[in-house]
Amino acid sequence: MDVRGEASTAGWARWGTAKDVKLPDSASRLLAQVLELTPPPSVVALAAVAVPDCELDGAVLDALRQVVGDGHVITTQEARVRHASGMSTPDLLRERHGDVRRAPQAVIRPADHRQVVSVLDICSRLGVAVVPFGGGTSVVGGLTPAATRYVALDLGRLNQLLAVDPVSRTATLQAGLRAPQATELLAEHGFTLGHVPQSYEYATIGGFAATRSSGQASAGYGRFDDMVMGLTVATPRGTVRAGRAPASAAGPDLRQLFLGSEGTLGVITDVTVRVRPLPARSHYEGWRFESFADGLHAVRRLAQDGPRPTLLRLSDEIETMIGAAGSGRSEGGCLLVVGYEGEEVLPTVEATADVLAAHGGVPLGEEAGQQWARHRFDAPYLRDALLDAGAFAETLETAAYWSALPEVHGRVRQAILDALPDGALVLGHVSHVYETGASLYFTVICSPGSDPIGRWRTAKAAASEAIAATGATISHHHGVGADHRAWYAAEIGDVAVDLLRAVKQQLDPAGILNPGILVP
Amino acid sequence: MDVRGEASTAGWARWGTAKDVKLPDSASRLLAQVLELTPPPSVVALAAVAVPDCELDGAVLDALRQVVGDGHVITTQEARVRHASGMSTPDLLRERHGDVRRAPQAVIRPADHRQVVSVLDICSRLGVAVVPFGGGTSVVGGLTPAATRYVALDLGRLNQLLAVDPVSRTATLQAGLRAPQATELLAEHGFTLGHVPQSYEYATIGGFAATRSSGQASAGYGRFDDMVMGLTVATPRGTVRAGRAPASAAGPDLRQLFLGSEGTLGVITDVTVRVRPLPARSHYEGWRFESFADGLHAVRRLAQDGPRPTLLRLSDEIETMIGAAGSGRSEGGCLLVVGYEGEEVLPTVEATADVLAAHGGVPLGEEAGQQWARHRFDAPYLRDALLDAGAFAETLETAAYWSALPEVHGRVRQAILDALPDGALVLGHVSHVYETGASLYFTVICSPGSDPIGRWRTAKAAASEAIAATGATISHHHGVGADHRAWYAAEIGDVAVDLLRAVKQQLDPAGILNPGILVP
Repeated sequence: MDVRGEASTAGWARWGTAKDVKLPDSASRLLAQVLELTPPPSVVALAAVAVPDCELDGAVLDALRQVVGDGHVITTQEARVRHASGMSTPDLLRERHGDVRRAPQAVIRPADHRQVVSVLDICSRLGVAVVPFGGGTSVVGGLTPAATRYVALDLGRLNQLLAVDPVSRTATLQAGLRAPQATELLAEHGFTLGHVPQSYEYATIGGFAATRSSGQASAGYGRFDDMVMGLTVATPRGTVRAGRAPASAAGPDLRQLFLGSEGTLGVITDVTVRVRPLPARSHYEGWRFESFADGLHAVRRLAQDGPRPTLLRLSDEIETMIGAAGSGRSEGGCLLVVGYEGEEVLPTVEATADVLAAHGGVPLGEEAGQQWARHRFDAPYLRDALLDAGAFAETLETAAYWSALPEVHGRVRQAILDALPDGALVLGHVSHVYETGASLYFTVICSPGSDPIGRWRTAKAAASEAIAATGATISHHHGVGADHRAWYAAEIGDVAVDLLRAVKQQLDPAGILNPGILVP
Repeated sequence: MDVRGEASTAGWARWGTAKDVKLPDSASRLLAQVLELTPPPSVVALAAVAVPDCELDGAVLDALRQVVGDGHVITTQEARVRHASGMSTPDLLRERHGDVRRAPQAVIRPADHRQVVSVLDICSRLGVAVVPFGGGTSVVGGLTPAATRYVALDLGRLNQLLAVDPVSRTATLQAGLRAPQATELLAEHGFTLGHVPQSYEYATIGGFAATRSSGQASAGYGRFDDMVMGLTVATPRGTVRAGRAPASAAGPDLRQLFLGSEGTLGVITDVTVRVRPLPARSHYEGWRFESFADGLHAVRRLAQDGPRPTLLRLSDEIETMIGAAGSGRSEGGCLLVVGYEGEEVLPTVEATADVLAAHGGVPLGEEAGQQWARHRFDAPYLRDALLDAGAFAETLETAAYWSALPEVHGRVRQAILDALPDGALVLGHVSHVYETGASLYFTVICSPGSDPIGRWRTAKAAASEAIAATGATISHHHGVGADHRAWYAAEIGDVAVDLLRAVKQQLDPAGILNPGILVP
């Protein structure tokens, strides 16, 4: 598997090369019918990307080398370019043009928590900004700080399973563990996290915590923040260990201040998570609903009254149509994928089927579900394929209470279409359900035009304004980063913004941690 | 029902007078056998309690009257005495002696959020401390600030159900609503909170949020903090509205900073909660386990693998014995009370019975469960009866991971016994279960001796040290208050203490909010 920040150059300016995902011919034909595709310029080779010389003087680098070891302060062009951004569409577009304006001065690879504390201490004293780097999969500008004099703190060496408590079903995982590694290590003890976001192949435990990640199986396993029992955080002021019990009334829940802090308040170095036994069985199936409204009603019933499958994913009419065009199916209506994992799944499968059928659902069988499962990580690769084909794809997401969801769906969709007057496909789905509401996820495909980043900015702003206007949240699981910062500030309000600034000032008085991200 | 702060004086220096709970004769005999009971001095009448004259000058009181109305700035001796403390054992002992050293200068009764903001603004400018007062049921010194120049902010007029969203199953409740009022108002819409702590008869919605309350049915309905979707907080810097969606990745979860803040960071004025349909059925039953260890194993299985009853309460051998002495039963072993609520309960009752029986449980039938349910709110009244009888009763609680629970149970118990060398009964139970662990609750009964508060302080410190030494949390649902402050600081660590101070400094720069509580 190609992993950003490591040796292969094949995955440059792409989501990754773990698999070779091609746009189905039927989808290409459909796109060509509805959009004006613009043949893209060729991708600048990684080796041809110019980065300015490292500005840090030798004394700074020497101080860092003394902490992490000579081989772990890396200033090569390749390492700096690979740590220069995340995986947002603007990030990829700039990379394809060889435009890496703000590469880190160096990549620092600490081995443990103590080294992270020391690196933060040095950088705080010397005024060098620090951007924690896990899997590098941020799609909201979480890795493009408002600083040029900064280092990337690559957590890849913090890759140990530190402890497993099989009685309490907890495990302590270091932050730099990638999800597949964590899965393997936990499986040796018979456990799983059940956390499977689309970024699964590359993303890390620390990144999941720092961004409040949510996985495809969240209906069964919960969000990542639900799983976190405790965490260790290195800050320029020292170490915070938050969480020591299954529940507590001992003051504010300080875990929740670092979860979602996106590297701006500290560096999460390990996380103690709730784990579950490896499921003996899994089962996927598809259902068809006449309309998105009918499907929403059915999944709301399940989320509120049960039974609760492990995974629920309801596509709207357009997403269902595009998906069907790719697969050759064309039933119309809306596709619901339902997944089940556990020791026994059949009773839940049957009880769920009763509810779905009672709400107008028509069973499509296992293949419709398994097809989704086979392609569950494909979408970000498809974005690369679309870029290659001269189209432009972006995703954005929110969450809202059930009563507001139809309006949020309609208004955000319309805002995007209005902002892209020469045509766009806007696909939507619900993929995370709660008793009180659900997520809404949009995929936008349009022609890039002559100024793709300008076009992105316009459509993104329109969608974000519509989200804010309906009272929904600016992100359900992508996070804030640099891209959502303005809407985030409006969402929490002035008093809360000042509060966050005070927290940052206390923990990071020199303002070195991921400057410009999250906190306005 | 007698409510503190209202007209009747009968409930003075007692938990309340909603019911007349007497110590069973069998329990009195048992106590007399094992403890030296000390006949208590008679309780000083409320009207005879001396409080110093109100020190606030007329200009301050006038400014407050302009905000809340003439009749809602109250300086009568009775109102000031009734708002002078909570319901901890030292609080009650001092009250019984007529020792009300730190009564508020006045009781302020705002009508709405806007008035609360104005009161905080005035008090912040004039340097008058403010103690938010809900049900007055704190058992950890949450209402005895380190200040003499303070007012009690009684939230009793904020008692409206502001909104119900039956589709999303959310409701917005004002902070001053007492739990029974909230239950009635929600029932008119067919909903319930399912939040039933022992303080249910008197405690308020705002208090539940400010102290991270957990109810007896938490296995089914969750903790109060689990239910909170959003809250409105008045601070001296203005208003914070946190939470607007079922889930969010938009930064740190700021709700979690105010939940558990115990009136030190702001005044919670309303809370938007998840609600559930009123259950059609409820069912309680008792089970017997040979030992606490066996019972723990069984409830852990249910908490981790299901099925999940609505209520699980496992008494240790001593609590079971004392309870049996009161009821005339004497099976030995450990009593588990299991409760179920829902549309249908029978399938869960049966599936749970299979698990309990497989782990050595012996069914005791419905009466053993219903007896608990009939007396579910009695324990704090029994404390009054014990004090009347010349005994001394106190409760304390913690939570820990499953693997640590037996050690926590043993060490805390032993620490209390060691601290009370002339004899004590220490009863224990688990009443809140989670996948990774559970709560542990202790009731201590001893003779008061000549210095009951000194004795309380010694035993409390010993128990708290033992809790800290085992790595458990200093409170699962009672909160921090003044009584747990030192152990709370040790639990969260220096960096986090400074962080909390910075948050308080930002929101409450004059330091008027509940000074001396929570934040060291």
